Amino acid sequence: GFVGADLENLVNEAAILAARRNKKAIGMAELQEAIERVMAGPERKSRLLSKRDREIVAYHEAGHAVVMHHLPLADPVHKVSIISRGMALGYTLGLPENDHIVIPRSKFHDEIAGLLGGRVAEELVFGDVTTGASNDLERATELARKMVKEYGMSDRLGPMTFGQKEELVFLGREIAEQRDYSEEIAQEIDQEIQNIVQNAYRRARQILTEKRDKLEALARALLEKETIEREEFLALMAA
Amino acid sequence: GFVGADLENLVNEAAILAARRNKKAIGMAELQEAIERVMAGPERKSRLLSKRDREIVAYHEAGHAVVMHHLPLADPVHKVSIISRGMALGYTLGLPENDHIVIPRSKFHDEIAGLLGGRVAEELVFGDVTTGASNDLERATELARKMVKEYGMSDRLGPMTFGQKEELVFLGREIAEQRDYSEEIAQEIDQEIQNIVQNAYRRARQILTEKRDKLEALARALLEKETIEREEFLALMAA
Amino acid sequence: GFVGADLENLVNEAAILAARRNKKAIGMAELQEAIERVMAGPERKSRLLSKRDREIVAYHEAGHAVVMHHLPLADPVHKVSIISRGMALGYTLGLPENDHIVIPRSKFHDEIAGLLGGRVAEELVFGDVTTGASNDLERATELARKMVKEYGMSDRLGPMTFGQKEELVFLGREIAEQRDYSEEIAQEIDQEIQNIVQNAYRRARQILTEKRDKLEALARALLEKETIEREEFLALMAA
Amino acid sequence: GFVGADLENLVNEAAILAARRNKKAIGMAELQEAIERVMAGPERKSRLLSKRDREIVAYHEAGHAVVMHHLPLADPVHKVSIISRGMALGYTLGLPENDHIVIPRSKFHDEIAGLLGGRVAEELVFGDVTTGASNDLERATELARKMVKEYGMSDRLGPMTFGQKEELVFLGREIAEQRDYSEEIAQEIDQEIQNIVQNAYRRARQILTEKRDKLEALARALLEKETIEREEFLALMAA
Amino acid sequence: GFVGADLENLVNEAAILAARRNKKAIGMAELQEAIERVMAGPERKSRLLSKRDREIVAYHEAGHAVVMHHLPLADPVHKVSIISRGMALGYTLGLPENDHIVIPRSKFHDEIAGLLGGRVAEELVFGDVTTGASNDLERATELARKMVKEYGMSDRLGPMTFGQKEELVFLGREIAEQRDYSEEIAQEIDQEIQNIVQNAYRRARQILTEKRDKLEALARALLEKETIEREEFLALMAA
Amino acid sequence: GFVGADLENLVNEAAILAARRNKKAIGMAELQEAIERVMAGPERKSRLLSKRDREIVAYHEAGHAVVMHHLPLADPVHKVSIISRGMALGYTLGLPENDHIVIPRSKFHDEIAGLLGGRVAEELVFGDVTTGASNDLERATELARKMVKEYGMSDRLGPMTFGQKEELVFLGREIAEQRDYSEEIAQEIDQEIQNIVQNAYRRARQILTEKRDKLEALARALLEKETIEREEFLALMAA
Repeated sequence: GFVGADLENLVNEAAILAARRNKKAIGMAELQEAIERVMAGPERKSRLLSKRDREIVAYHEAGHAVVMHHLPLADPVHKVSIISRGMALGYTLGLPENDHIVIPRSKFHDEIAGLLGGRVAEELVFGDVTTGASNDLERATELARKMVKEYGMSDRLGPMTFGQKEELVFLGREIAEQRDYSEEIAQEIDQEIQNIVQNAYRRARQILTEKRDKLEALARALLEKETIEREEFLALMAA
Repeated sequence: GFVGADLENLVNEAAILAARRNKKAIGMAELQEAIERVMAGPERKSRLLSKRDREIVAYHEAGHAVVMHHLPLADPVHKVSIISRGMALGYTLGLPENDHIVIPRSKFHDEIAGLLGGRVAEELVFGDVTTGASNDLERATELARKMVKEYGMSDRLGPMTFGQKEELVFLGREIAEQRDYSEEIAQEIDQEIQNIVQNAYRRARQILTEKRDKLEALARALLEKETIEREEFLALMAA
Repeated sequence: GFVGADLENLVNEAAILAARRNKKAIGMAELQEAIERVMAGPERKSRLLSKRDREIVAYHEAGHAVVMHHLPLADPVHKVSIISRGMALGYTLGLPENDHIVIPRSKFHDEIAGLLGGRVAEELVFGDVTTGASNDLERATELARKMVKEYGMSDRLGPMTFGQKEELVFLGREIAEQRDYSEEIAQEIDQEIQNIVQNAYRRARQILTEKRDKLEALARALLEKETIEREEFLALMAA
Repeated sequence: GFVGADLENLVNEAAILAARRNKKAIGMAELQEAIERVMAGPERKSRLLSKRDREIVAYHEAGHAVVMHHLPLADPVHKVSIISRGMALGYTLGLPENDHIVIPRSKFHDEIAGLLGGRVAEELVFGDVTTGASNDLERATELARKMVKEYGMSDRLGPMTFGQKEELVFLGREIAEQRDYSEEIAQEIDQEIQNIVQNAYRRARQILTEKRDKLEALARALLEKETIEREEFLALMAA
Repeated sequence: GFVGADLENLVNEAAILAARRNKKAIGMAELQEAIERVMAGPERKSRLLSKRDREIVAYHEAGHAVVMHHLPLADPVHKVSIISRGMALGYTLGLPENDHIVIPRSKFHDEIAGLLGGRVAEELVFGDVTTGASNDLERATELARKMVKEYGMSDRLGPMTFGQKEELVFLGREIAEQRDYSEEIAQEIDQEIQNIVQNAYRRARQILTEKRDKLEALARALLEKETIEREEFLALMAA
Repeated sequence: GFVGADLENLVNEAAILAARRNKKAIGMAELQEAIERVMAGPERKSRLLSKRDREIVAYHEAGHAVVMHHLPLADPVHKVSIISRGMALGYTLGLPENDHIVIPRSKFHDEIAGLLGGRVAEELVFGDVTTGASNDLERATELARKMVKEYGMSDRLGPMTFGQKEELVFLGREIAEQRDYSEEIAQEIDQEIQNIVQNAYRRARQILTEKRDKLEALARALLEKETIEREEFLALMAA
């Protein structure tokens, strides 16, 4: 049965799944999937990373955590780990201080920078980038797209929405959007999304360049202990 | 059973749903959905907003109401509230004085400005904008699109319609429109929609800048009493 | 049963439906729908227009009738009314003198101008335009589109057709056309359609500006009597 | 039963159907449809044309016949008639001298000019054009399109084909072509089709301007006798 | 039963079908179809060509054969015939000397020139082109398209492939390709295909201009004997 | 049953299939297909290559192997062979030294160069290119596309993803991507993919030009022995 560590595992797993899907709360879908993963757990233990891969993962997760820590509206870092879970080789868990329902534009900018922190760390430390950031980049792009198309947060495109949101159920699956705008607007939307992502990347790069020592310290701690909890994380950042 | 307050709740809920869908009357669909919401009511009580969120919602709703009050053809404000209902964190209820069936272009301009009043208030008061205006922006864009494509109200595009309206039922759902015009026309349509929305935004901004004191007074009243009825609203505006 | 006035109602209703669909004859579909409308008649009596709406409808219908009367190839005006029928708030019934099967280009230009007469009247009299012209604009656009794409009546695009007319039955409904031309041709088609509609609008505007007194007289007569038959209409135009 | 005149009617009808579909031979489909038309014949007698429509049809058919007679590769004129058959208000029957299977480019140019002869006659004689040429224009456009896309007969586009011809059966109907070329090629294809049609129009116009007396004589004969057979036609052309 | 000449007929027919489909070997599909054609053979005897059509076919087939004979990598000519088979009015049968599996770019250029030899001969001899080359042009275009998109044989577009080849089975039929590139690439692909086809056309034209006497000799022989076998063909070319 | 050589055959076959699909591990699908191929093995023995084809295959496979050997991040060469297996006329088997899960951008560049080594060798040695590289080019293009669109590895397009990855199951098959970007971005993506492939081609060409002697030696060894194992390969490279 699910007792002690198993239950904690389960909740941890579900929280990671929810974060990965840009959800603020764990839903039934996440719980279901987490149960399957935890029950299939022992098999994953065999997936041992090479030394090089392990270092990349450590600096990548440390990059997320350090950037998030230095941005006012990113969620506070709760835990950082380089233990593989499901498809993820590591994770940085941010938990919101209180449950905001109305999300301001400035918070989106900070969240996107936090998502890009992993890729920036790879580039700074190893001078090369990897496939490890793929899911982060997808989530950052998706947030930037929503800012422009659903929340009217682009000054250039104005306080409007783009793309019909009526959900067409097509043979049992939803197609989320019908394109109802011209090619010129499509191009402006793309430029705005690129601007948002590239500005966030520059901010993340500036933070990690200035706080390189914190990045190194956290990565070393991760390589040693695999998981760093909030208290130890704050101590490292304050050092 | 539905007695007293429940029934009033039910009608309120249905009226909000209808307004959100740009309908002037409550239909069976709204009633049905309202019944489900009211019966599921107690659960929603747990959704308590943070102080910050509550302030944003108050200024947002006050923005709608103050703009609507100062435009000749917007519906008179009947009630303003920051009590959550369904997906809405607050609502401003405008009821038409008499049931106009033929709607003039000038009324559309006023309605769009009213819809944008919430976003304008956020920007003026907090210097930041939030996801809270998403549904307003979608409705404003949709009204502007109909003006240009269905009602021939754009001088630049002329007294014509664009997009075949024959409703194709595709696997049980309607696809509302077939695009029957060139990319150049698509671009002109987009520009006209943007012009309409941006002009309405400027008008809403001018009103709230000039009537900042009314905005503040109404927001404070909402934070204190949560719901302001028509009489008190008129008194605040006249003060 | 259907006796006397009911039967006349029925034919009137079907004639309006047919005209609205650009048909010269009443078909089974129109009869069927007319029967349903007439049987559902008493309910519609409750739809009382406001004074303002009633004036707009009167000038709108008078606009159609006065323009049609002053164009050589538009159908002679048979009846004008501001009594609501089905979705229509009023109607102007034109009946062809004899049943032409081959329709010349010049007649299309006159018919389109007649369709736009309602919108022009609104603009001249009230300085604003309304949603009331929506169906007229759709029919005018459709006629102009057929002139250019099906009847080869655009000098610029030449004596050709555009768009494969083979009717593809897709899941039980016809998609009328496959686009078989380039974006450049699509743009030229749009420009020709716009030219046709805008020229017709100018002609309708010139007629109503010159015959403003007839427009006023007919609108006043409609507001008083609700329906004007052919003889009285001709007397008003000759006054 | 089908005897004497009925049988001749039947073959005539099928021949017109086949020509209208750009077929050189009568197929089962044409026979089937012709039988239905002939059996439904008496009903069509009620479709009496107005004097004006009848004149337009006479000049239109005379236009086809005179142009075809003066072009070396157009099919010899077998019969001209202004008696309505099926959807057609008149017809000009051309029968090939011998059954060519390999069709040269020059013959296509003559056939297209013949198809446009009806529209040209309307324009020359009445100074207006009508919907009567719609099917002719569609067939002319289709032949020009095939020359460019299937037969590689455009010098500018070269000896190639455009558009995948694999016939995709989609829910029981064929979609004849998948577009497998760029927008630029689509534009060049359109220009070549327009050139072919407009050159043919100019040739038809030149012939009918020079042979205006033959056009008048044939139209007058048609208005008097309704149907002109080959011998009488040749006599009129030789007069 | 199938004995003697029938069996040879059968194999001949299947070989032509395979060649027409750009296959190097006869498959079950070709055999099946060939059996049907041979069994339906006597009916086709009634399709007698006119003298003019017969001459066009003779020069057309001679054009293929003479061009193929003078290009190093085109398949050696095995048989030339002007006897109709299935849809083909004549055929030139080339059989590869040994069964190459890896096909070089230079062989594609020669094969395309051979396919265009028929059209070139028509143009040189008659000064007009016909529908007879339609299938040749389609095959030539298809080979050029594969060179550019599947085999990476265009220097300008580079050693890459274009168009996702995953075959989507859509309601029982394969759609061979999803377009996964931009309009600009689509335009470059078209230009490369046109270049390949037009260069091959020029080479075929040069050969037939220089070897006009061989073309005439072979066409005359075909008109006399209808079918020329390999030995006689080689003798004519060597004369 | 599967004993000895059969089993080795089976694993070899599955490894080739997996490599061809850009997979690092053999899955059930590969095993299943490999079993079918091995059981159908004897039939394939009849596919004997011509001398010319055999030489092309030998230089092609030697090209892959020599390029892979001289690039730091390409997988070490395990075996090279010109024995046909399934659809492949030869194969070069690279096995990763240790199982990297996080793949850096620089490794992609080396892998793409290795894939293009076969085509480069054909061009250098024979001065012509063949259809033999088709699958290599497709895999190289696919890797370059993923770098740009899924892994954010293009500096020009930035650390974002392009194309919605939600997999829409459409009538039983997945359509992998919905295009959610403008034509301009599509064009930039194409240019980046072309740049990546062409740079890799240049690197492969430089290696094979400098190591032409190794290429010749390996090709000669393959023509003699058909399969070269790792030890002999290393000896040849070190010679």
